[in-house]
Amino acid sequence: MKLLVVGTLAFDSVETPFGQAENVLGGSASYLATSASFFTQPQIVGVVGEDFPQEHLDFFVKKGIDCTGVQKTAGKTFRWAGSYHGNMNEAKTHETQLNVLESFRPDLPEHYKNTPYVFLGNIDPDLQMHVISQLTDTKLVACDTMNFWIEGRRSSLMKTLEKVDLLSINDGEAKLLSGEENIVTAAQAIRQMGPKYVVIKRGEYGAILFTEESMFAAPAIPLEVVKDPTGAGDTFAGGMLGYLAHMDRVDDRTLRQAIIVGSTMASFTVQDFSLNKLQTLQESDIQKCFEEFVQLTQFERNLYAS
Amino acid sequence: MKLLVVGTLAFDSVETPFGQAENVLGGSASYLATSASFFTQPQIVGVVGEDFPQEHLDFFVKKGIDCTGVQKTAGKTFRWAGSYHGNMNEAKTHETQLNVLESFRPDLPEHYKNTPYVFLGNIDPDLQMHVISQLTDTKLVACDTMNFWIEGRRSSLMKTLEKVDLLSINDGEAKLLSGEENIVTAAQAIRQMGPKYVVIKRGEYGAILFTEESMFAAPAIPLEVVKDPTGAGDTFAGGMLGYLAHMDRVDDRTLRQAIIVGSTMASFTVQDFSLNKLQTLQESDIQKCFEEFVQLTQFERNLYAS
Repeated sequence: MKLLVVGTLAFDSVETPFGQAENVLGGSASYLATSASFFTQPQIVGVVGEDFPQEHLDFFVKKGIDCTGVQKTAGKTFRWAGSYHGNMNEAKTHETQLNVLESFRPDLPEHYKNTPYVFLGNIDPDLQMHVISQLTDTKLVACDTMNFWIEGRRSSLMKTLEKVDLLSINDGEAKLLSGEENIVTAAQAIRQMGPKYVVIKRGEYGAILFTEESMFAAPAIPLEVVKDPTGAGDTFAGGMLGYLAHMDRVDDRTLRQAIIVGSTMASFTVQDFSLNKLQTLQESDIQKCFEEFVQLTQFERNLYAS
Repeated sequence: MKLLVVGTLAFDSVETPFGQAENVLGGSASYLATSASFFTQPQIVGVVGEDFPQEHLDFFVKKGIDCTGVQKTAGKTFRWAGSYHGNMNEAKTHETQLNVLESFRPDLPEHYKNTPYVFLGNIDPDLQMHVISQLTDTKLVACDTMNFWIEGRRSSLMKTLEKVDLLSINDGEAKLLSGEENIVTAAQAIRQMGPKYVVIKRGEYGAILFTEESMFAAPAIPLEVVKDPTGAGDTFAGGMLGYLAHMDRVDDRTLRQAIIVGSTMASFTVQDFSLNKLQTLQESDIQKCFEEFVQLTQFERNLYAS
């Protein structure tokens, strides 16, 4: 099944203790679609300026990504500049230039409207809602959000959440959204807002899935090399949604595997700047890393197994 | 097999957002031995003052704990006062009264000396070494330490680590000890210092085991009620070592289960103040919580299992 992703296409300038990258390909839609492309055929909705190089679009198309919904408009592409320090768990934003994003309106090409799996990247909740209102035949609508919208656009966000099946959010944002300090209570409160499934991203500590029936906790693979965490959350979500679309099944068991797939994909992204690692990734790398996850987490299910 | 634990016996005064407790039973040896008592027969080495109530010692004996090595000396028992705020991941120490701990010398009763499993709680590394020097026939010597010794007594600590098989340490301390920001590199560096096995405790995020062959990452059970994290790390270590002593086997597979057992035990301790929860715990509670761990972490081992 196909996957629709809505989000930003950007030029990022990033500094970490391991180097820097200037004006490289970034944006939530880039990471989401590229990560998902290993499992399904993603369709991007987004906007770029006249300065966006054709080679990036060519790369997407080569990965089987439908770029019909990428609007090219007069002006400059969205730009973000930031840095990471210490344990690199949080980005410090130096500059945000909205540029063409300022007047972005995510109108869907006709053939996108009945796409069954949808991920709404972190954009204005009113725009997320505008996408939802065009959808005709969904099986799973998922989204992300951030502090900026939680604090500044709460009532819009609440309306969007009512229409969303799965929220993928980091732990600090989950606490802010719910007003709860405890992550279990926070997830329960968020489930009351609409999403049946809540996935809490914890960076290097992994992720937790909360459903009606159960909790599932997955660690992240402890990595020796983390060069740049930018895009890790979107790569995670892209892998997760891409896998669900591939399996065309949303149940507890498949969601659990989807989270491991998402973590697998994210573990590649952070090993290099921009989409560098994803761009050279092979199917066999993913299979191998998934098996590392199995090794990393398995233990005897019988307490006194001898 | 028996387990020797060396550590403090204390009166704790603790404040958390969920209440407070004054002069309650605490100390690393209390948590270590009580937690381990569900799996093996622990032997305590520690010191108390004349003010230490007989009822606490009676409780230990009732749990099958050998208290021959608990020295009762003139003066007052060690006291610690602290509080937890926000996400309660770190204690703020208000007061430490060493009292009888100041002149503590952990001399082992004759019948403790050939105990095969040993956990040296977080005390002066010279005292940990003094214990090691009395041991005659060990299968596994494990220890804990803290910032205070890492910063103030590094050369003593390094000598102790050379003689230790397993180090159980929290992530911040691992980074401080190794001088490495990355947890994988930190664990590798610590393994070079002596311990074959390094267990990194990450509080609510679980624990990671590093051995020569593999890494094992276990989440903690996400808990709705965390009243008081005091003693969680020692309860974890007590469960882990108690289980290893019970199984009388130290291999990758048993170590992994031991870590789940440790996490299981710690998840009980934090649900109430002091040892309250451990004091009323039943075998069946442990079995049930271990099964919750299996539920919490299991996923299909085949990437495209249908």
